[in-house]
Amino acid sequence: MRDVSIIGIGQTVVAEHWGRSIRDLAVEAVRKAREDAGTERLDALYVGNMLSGELTGQENLATLVADAAGLLPIEALKIEAACASGGAAVRAAYLAVASGAQDYVMAVGVEKMTDLLTDGVTSALAMAADADYEAGHGISFVALNAMLMRRYMHEHKARHEDFAPFSVNSHANAAANPHAMYRQPITTEDFMASPIVADPINILDSAGICDGAAAVLIGPASEARRARRAPVRVAASTCATDTVGLAERRDPLVWQAVADSARLAYERARVGPKDIDLYEVHDAFTIVSVLSLEACGFADRGSALKLAAEGRIGLDGDVPICTLGGLKGRGHPVGASGTYQIVEVVQQLRGEAGAAQVKGARLGMAQSVGGSGSVAVTHILQV
Amino acid sequence: MRDVSIIGIGQTVVAEHWGRSIRDLAVEAVRKAREDAGTERLDALYVGNMLSGELTGQENLATLVADAAGLLPIEALKIEAACASGGAAVRAAYLAVASGAQDYVMAVGVEKMTDLLTDGVTSALAMAADADYEAGHGISFVALNAMLMRRYMHEHKARHEDFAPFSVNSHANAAANPHAMYRQPITTEDFMASPIVADPINILDSAGICDGAAAVLIGPASEARRARRAPVRVAASTCATDTVGLAERRDPLVWQAVADSARLAYERARVGPKDIDLYEVHDAFTIVSVLSLEACGFADRGSALKLAAEGRIGLDGDVPICTLGGLKGRGHPVGASGTYQIVEVVQQLRGEAGAAQVKGARLGMAQSVGGSGSVAVTHILQV
Repeated sequence: MRDVSIIGIGQTVVAEHWGRSIRDLAVEAVRKAREDAGTERLDALYVGNMLSGELTGQENLATLVADAAGLLPIEALKIEAACASGGAAVRAAYLAVASGAQDYVMAVGVEKMTDLLTDGVTSALAMAADADYEAGHGISFVALNAMLMRRYMHEHKARHEDFAPFSVNSHANAAANPHAMYRQPITTEDFMASPIVADPINILDSAGICDGAAAVLIGPASEARRARRAPVRVAASTCATDTVGLAERRDPLVWQAVADSARLAYERARVGPKDIDLYEVHDAFTIVSVLSLEACGFADRGSALKLAAEGRIGLDGDVPICTLGGLKGRGHPVGASGTYQIVEVVQQLRGEAGAAQVKGARLGMAQSVGGSGSVAVTHILQV
Repeated sequence: MRDVSIIGIGQTVVAEHWGRSIRDLAVEAVRKAREDAGTERLDALYVGNMLSGELTGQENLATLVADAAGLLPIEALKIEAACASGGAAVRAAYLAVASGAQDYVMAVGVEKMTDLLTDGVTSALAMAADADYEAGHGISFVALNAMLMRRYMHEHKARHEDFAPFSVNSHANAAANPHAMYRQPITTEDFMASPIVADPINILDSAGICDGAAAVLIGPASEARRARRAPVRVAASTCATDTVGLAERRDPLVWQAVADSARLAYERARVGPKDIDLYEVHDAFTIVSVLSLEACGFADRGSALKLAAEGRIGLDGDVPICTLGGLKGRGHPVGASGTYQIVEVVQQLRGEAGAAQVKGARLGMAQSVGGSGSVAVTHILQV
């Protein structure tokens, strides 16, 4: 297995792109990543996407993007792992390059959630849950997370406002990210005044529905030194799974897939959570950040809210998360979010995060989660 | 890149499984492939599937199958490349093992097309075409292939009955396959009397809508010698793409992605079409067999019908195709078909194809095609 580096990144602004198609968004991100890398070479394209079939009537998406981006006849496959699809596409690209089968592989995560054939975004997202035993009974994805949050509040005697620092942090960091959707800072008062979606989850607990694409160009580390930009090494790429149905878990507050994929990643990279300079956590809901921080060893069980309350998740803290806004602030085009995370870690490790820069960042972790913690893809990147 | 072998295969009967769920079918194929290999080890699961979101309301499918098969917490990702998804999942498994990142990886192709939330199988299949520029105008997938067939008949002065030998051959071979859906032989007269679907394509030109799952367990060749069954070497695994839209092609009768993926496969395996002992072609429609045989160098342009008329595509011919029934005879559960093809090539190379055995088969090719020739995944297997 040869060493693998990220040599180019590209991204669209995350927004409601009413006037743009899914292929158009993907092509922009791919083009920018190729320009960033300064190389014409490309051997394969892996597209991370969850909902193109359901929301835009398009499968065969990877070939469509390869075609629209002028990349024919290269290999093109779509990778789906619910909301972790964007991380999974990067993992597929990593494997293809690590094997030696391909030298330069583009992973592009893309999702188009506005201007649809259908208005059923909420039911489409529920396809990440168990269709027969969860979604079939009418429960939405936000409601599943609401049950987790309520259980956490009960077990750890937490109040809803204890979750506010996560949302406040993500919005504050997004303000410095020109690609983010929600660049306005918010206060704890804003958070508490926000309308409930599924009790106790409110609007500001939740990442928004939107469109976007992000791309990462991967190549062999041996060649990366010749690239235009300083390469970022992929120190670990892992994936782990847990039950899809929440009811099947012994303890729903233990996110075992997240824990397993992080543990494997730490082992491969030979680091621990204390070595990680920033952690792009999958903050689809504030409760997801809490459970993920605890699963990955950044906080003991029941203590992630304290970590946030003490300001340790901020850019100057010892566990900076969502440094360019996270899913909450940047926006959460589901199948693209995992790729955005990796693009943002690269920005940080290159020292190009502007006002959101984590000083001296050398080791960053990006973690993309699908379902209610049922699949997790973790990457550790290093300069 | 290390050498990779297939050490286990499994498959369900292809049928209208009204009483069984998509996870149930996948689990059966996975279980059988594990039993066949005689090993408990498994590091990852890649699921090939096109339509689980649209037809059964289920994404996050790979995690669902890993869960139902008792494989947690292993890596699990879904791979989509329209009707080539089943071949693409095997390719993803090949890359993961070739890289050294994983040792034992299961690829399972699965599709559930009956007993649906929706009755829109035809519109679902059209998602393999260009949603904005083809399907959006109401053309179905069979109609796109009908235009290709009509053009071929015009250009090469062929009659509809010239295509009959392909359907007759597939049905004859399926009769010997206990996993096939259509085990009754047919005659040229049956073919000609078959009702038109989209002129000139009739029912017996077309592979049927059905359910099924097939699985392939892949491991490093160095370990495969210890396996219970004689390993089959993956001599080549390739993927290539062409425009999704038929109207974008210079010459719609040249299936360039099929040609490119075959050429790459021949180069990697250091063989040519004359060395191939059997060719599992993607006979979704008879015209697809014709265009694929010509694209892969088994017949010159315009001469594949002659090849069939001369009986050379039969089990005793020099270009045996669809040896266990192909998509037409075995059935075409779209995202599973590419995996079925590979299972069947393994059966042939092991000498376990029963009455459908190609004598002395040492080198087999399986080719899975998505869209109207827009993406092709080719594997060459060897004993």
